[in-house]
Amino acid sequence: MRQLDIAAAIGLIGSFVFLTGAVLLGGDLASFYNLPAVLIVLGGTLMVATISFSFRDILNAQRIIAKTIFQKSVNPEEAAFRMLDLAEECRHRGVLHLQNKLPELSDLSFQHKALQLVVDGLPSEEVNRILQQDLGGMVGRHNNSAGILRKAAEVSPAMGLIGTLVGLIQMLSNLNDPATIGPAMAVALLTTFYGAVMANMFFTPLATKLERNSATEVLRNKIFMAGAASIGRQENPRRLEMYLNTLLPPTQRVQYYS
Amino acid sequence: MRQLDIAAAIGLIGSFVFLTGAVLLGGDLASFYNLPAVLIVLGGTLMVATISFSFRDILNAQRIIAKTIFQKSVNPEEAAFRMLDLAEECRHRGVLHLQNKLPELSDLSFQHKALQLVVDGLPSEEVNRILQQDLGGMVGRHNNSAGILRKAAEVSPAMGLIGTLVGLIQMLSNLNDPATIGPAMAVALLTTFYGAVMANMFFTPLATKLERNSATEVLRNKIFMAGAASIGRQENPRRLEMYLNTLLPPTQRVQYYS
Amino acid sequence: MRQLDIAAAIGLIGSFVFLTGAVLLGGDLASFYNLPAVLIVLGGTLMVATISFSFRDILNAQRIIAKTIFQKSVNPEEAAFRMLDLAEECRHRGVLHLQNKLPELSDLSFQHKALQLVVDGLPSEEVNRILQQDLGGMVGRHNNSAGILRKAAEVSPAMGLIGTLVGLIQMLSNLNDPATIGPAMAVALLTTFYGAVMANMFFTPLATKLERNSATEVLRNKIFMAGAASIGRQENPRRLEMYLNTLLPPTQRVQYYS
Amino acid sequence: MRQLDIAAAIGLIGSFVFLTGAVLLGGDLASFYNLPAVLIVLGGTLMVATISFSFRDILNAQRIIAKTIFQKSVNPEEAAFRMLDLAEECRHRGVLHLQNKLPELSDLSFQHKALQLVVDGLPSEEVNRILQQDLGGMVGRHNNSAGILRKAAEVSPAMGLIGTLVGLIQMLSNLNDPATIGPAMAVALLTTFYGAVMANMFFTPLATKLERNSATEVLRNKIFMAGAASIGRQENPRRLEMYLNTLLPPTQRVQYYS
Amino acid sequence: MRQLDIAAAIGLIGSFVFLTGAVLLGGDLASFYNLPAVLIVLGGTLMVATISFSFRDILNAQRIIAKTIFQKSVNPEEAAFRMLDLAEECRHRGVLHLQNKLPELSDLSFQHKALQLVVDGLPSEEVNRILQQDLGGMVGRHNNSAGILRKAAEVSPAMGLIGTLVGLIQMLSNLNDPATIGPAMAVALLTTFYGAVMANMFFTPLATKLERNSATEVLRNKIFMAGAASIGRQENPRRLEMYLNTLLPPTQRVQYYS
Repeated sequence: MRQLDIAAAIGLIGSFVFLTGAVLLGGDLASFYNLPAVLIVLGGTLMVATISFSFRDILNAQRIIAKTIFQKSVNPEEAAFRMLDLAEECRHRGVLHLQNKLPELSDLSFQHKALQLVVDGLPSEEVNRILQQDLGGMVGRHNNSAGILRKAAEVSPAMGLIGTLVGLIQMLSNLNDPATIGPAMAVALLTTFYGAVMANMFFTPLATKLERNSATEVLRNKIFMAGAASIGRQENPRRLEMYLNTLLPPTQRVQYYS
Repeated sequence: MRQLDIAAAIGLIGSFVFLTGAVLLGGDLASFYNLPAVLIVLGGTLMVATISFSFRDILNAQRIIAKTIFQKSVNPEEAAFRMLDLAEECRHRGVLHLQNKLPELSDLSFQHKALQLVVDGLPSEEVNRILQQDLGGMVGRHNNSAGILRKAAEVSPAMGLIGTLVGLIQMLSNLNDPATIGPAMAVALLTTFYGAVMANMFFTPLATKLERNSATEVLRNKIFMAGAASIGRQENPRRLEMYLNTLLPPTQRVQYYS
Repeated sequence: MRQLDIAAAIGLIGSFVFLTGAVLLGGDLASFYNLPAVLIVLGGTLMVATISFSFRDILNAQRIIAKTIFQKSVNPEEAAFRMLDLAEECRHRGVLHLQNKLPELSDLSFQHKALQLVVDGLPSEEVNRILQQDLGGMVGRHNNSAGILRKAAEVSPAMGLIGTLVGLIQMLSNLNDPATIGPAMAVALLTTFYGAVMANMFFTPLATKLERNSATEVLRNKIFMAGAASIGRQENPRRLEMYLNTLLPPTQRVQYYS
Repeated sequence: MRQLDIAAAIGLIGSFVFLTGAVLLGGDLASFYNLPAVLIVLGGTLMVATISFSFRDILNAQRIIAKTIFQKSVNPEEAAFRMLDLAEECRHRGVLHLQNKLPELSDLSFQHKALQLVVDGLPSEEVNRILQQDLGGMVGRHNNSAGILRKAAEVSPAMGLIGTLVGLIQMLSNLNDPATIGPAMAVALLTTFYGAVMANMFFTPLATKLERNSATEVLRNKIFMAGAASIGRQENPRRLEMYLNTLLPPTQRVQYYS
Repeated sequence: MRQLDIAAAIGLIGSFVFLTGAVLLGGDLASFYNLPAVLIVLGGTLMVATISFSFRDILNAQRIIAKTIFQKSVNPEEAAFRMLDLAEECRHRGVLHLQNKLPELSDLSFQHKALQLVVDGLPSEEVNRILQQDLGGMVGRHNNSAGILRKAAEVSPAMGLIGTLVGLIQMLSNLNDPATIGPAMAVALLTTFYGAVMANMFFTPLATKLERNSATEVLRNKIFMAGAASIGRQENPRRLEMYLNTLLPPTQRVQYYS
């Protein structure tokens, strides 16, 4: 079950509300839509990304951008509390008690997998090795997608400039009717406008968001890894709390026992 | 009790005085205010920051910018003298004398905490570990906030450009009345102006200031740490003076004894 | 036998289709062709590259760009499966059986060379040393060519700007007939347009592609190296599978046995 | 006694002579002076620097810029010859002979201090430690000042742009009298001109000069340090010559004996 | 005896031929020459370089640029063959035979010096130390000169912009005669044109060339060093060939024996 990353959603919607508001205060929206301009900026950016990357990378990136906005809700502190709860329970009822809990935990696949491996009785190092490989794969996919977003943020203003040059050259080649100069230049500037909006209000902030959410997800999964390993070793949960607090940033440390 | 960072305050006020003066010498202020322009640049910058970061980060950043301007007055030299005074007193009257001094020191929470830990009798390494963690947390929060300021300094000129493109496209689409061209272009340029002012006279210098004040605060707190540890170990204060002088930059070294 | 890198081909063709489409929607193609403009941007970029590099480097770069688009089809997973197939066969029929297989493998020169060395009975370390040297040479040639493409991506917009300045200066020196201003400016802008298109739709994405394909080719050849070494040592192919999976990125791991 | 750094002085004067010459060939200087423009660029740059740094840093920077131009004349080769002369003399007449020489050497405070410490009979390591600390302090002050110059080189074109936007917005808001458009735009462009001149003909080259002179001064002082230590140890001066030649760049090596 | 670096010469001449051709196709060359514009860009760039560097650095840079274009012809492969020839000869006739060969080798001072040191009977390590110092000095001089070229490539467009601002401000201050606007703007743009041409068609590519030729010269001299050391040790030349091939890039490896 995924929840919305509210900041990203509000920011995306809010920035387009501000933009539309500013447009409507000064005129109507109609003069801001032009099909060839959309084609050259959106299509051109997509095509240049296709040259630079493979189809698989680009499809992955789209899926991962969607995940960035509809981000899971469990933050690192909650993850730490969940693992401490489980560790406390397992200290009293034994590790095999986890088996009954697993179905409840299916909303977070990484936590589920980590605990499943413990229940399966794999040794601590093997559990760590398998989860570390999963984590590395996730980081690689995120970096790849953030790289594609950053590339798109570079390419879209360039396509906007190219589109504006096309419009200006066409306008300047046919200066017969002065009344058409203004509207023609307006249309020519639309691609620059599209490129600037796409780069600065979409691609760049989403890339930053993706990198930050990826870091949070890595931290959360490291907490799940540490918790599962600790439960597998049947350690005292107080020790786990101390270790988790060294992983968590100072402002997010948990106080479960102390 | 916090005092004003006079350089930051004078700089901020002074730069706006110069700007307003330059405007007034050439015309009136009225033509430099336009609500849609304010909305698109300020609102857009805030919204893009919201996409990139979380609400918590942005609120923290605002609080930390305020702290940057209303910065505490104790500089590293003063901190060194304060710790040497205390060390000298404790050499004569014993460490427990600190307990009576603590209420006077409540204006600097880090110094207060460091000395409280010594009074509580914690071993030197434990005191260091706890304070180091606090210091790390502070540095992390400052870096985060400086990062948001630098991001805002990147975004605001981009939003200014987008606003100017909106204005130019609207003006060019409706060239019926030539008399309106000038004022319409003036309004279109306002967003570029707002973006340039925000980035260059507000966000970027505040980020630099924040980074420099953070470095000074780290140095000051390291001096408190070193002083508290030295008092806890009941060392000769001359030795503390020598150690503090290795921490202080050459132009700010203290001469307490020698 | 080489196959087309479909993403690069579609991207290159697609971006020019979008560009041409946008041009045709607003006018005709004729006003976008101008011989002096082509000469100054294309010729100038080539000449500046000639100053910066040697002829040999530039010819190599052209050959390697061609190879980037007509890229071999064997990806790392397929390479892993091919080596596991061969290892399995050799386990049953002996290493010398490779000699009969070699002619079938002539489509991939690196794999062919690796296995030839094993058939020739060279010791493992020697095989590795020779192949490592080959691999290093390939990486060096690719980096060199990517560097030339990146340089061309920097130079071509600069040549476009120089061409536009030439056109503007000529137009401004002869303002006698106002009717020629528009078309003259259109021609002047053509070089900026050519420069922007060359840099953003050709040189930069091809450089990125080249770097990514080079990384994939290195990975594939490392898999051939590891496979040949394993066959030479007559290891259990299950062990080879495990080792290859540590080389492959998590999303491309192979499941040959397990 | 300080001498002028002739290259810096000639460069600064020469570049302004070229600039003034170019201005005078095309018109008169009067149209290049405008008080509000000066206020907004100079004052704004100073105020933004004040926000970013402290008053102490900015005053230090001004003092150090002055020192950069009126730079001491002793270059590393001369420093090496001076130390070899002294070492030769001391070999014949003993270290205490230095005491008589010290008053003659008062023009270079670092050399004077180094030899004073040797005359005072401090052990070699102590001399080195004290001088190293002095050297570190000097490098820190230079880096700080170069950083302020680089910051000013970033800020001044931005203030120039802001000033030009102010001028353009004012001009466009009042287009009643077409005859005023030209002169008003000329004035608006003045701030961009001031910003470009300050950044490119003053702040940036002085920062580069400061960094280079700082490196030369460090080298020279290291030669004084090495010389003083060698004299203190009563080493053979030939050995000192060999060591100094490893410090000096190949084109400036000295041939005192060989 | 020095030979022309043909690529650099053709590139430099070719790019100016293309530029002149493009100019002549659209008008005459006369409108592209203007003395004040030349003065402000060329003179300004030279003066700013004078502020940043010393006279000695700038004169050295000019000498080294000349050497870059009239570059010696011996490339690393030829150097390897020459040293292998000599090693083979010396194996048969003894090291002292070199003495007769030295006069023939005077065209390459580094090779000559390396072999002279061997003939003089210096031990291998001493030969290496002396030559290494020479090599380090050469690299330092090249880096210095490349740095000056890169600086000039930064400064010249800035001086071009300053010149254009001067021209625009003068034109805008005197709009009395509309017929002069065009030519005045054309002249104003000339400095931007000169700055762009100097930076992109002269300084930047020559800096790249210088860095690449420096790397080649270092490699060639390392081959001479290795060869001289090997001859001095009277090693088997086959061993020298193997060692030289580890220094040479894969595409330039030599096959002297095998």
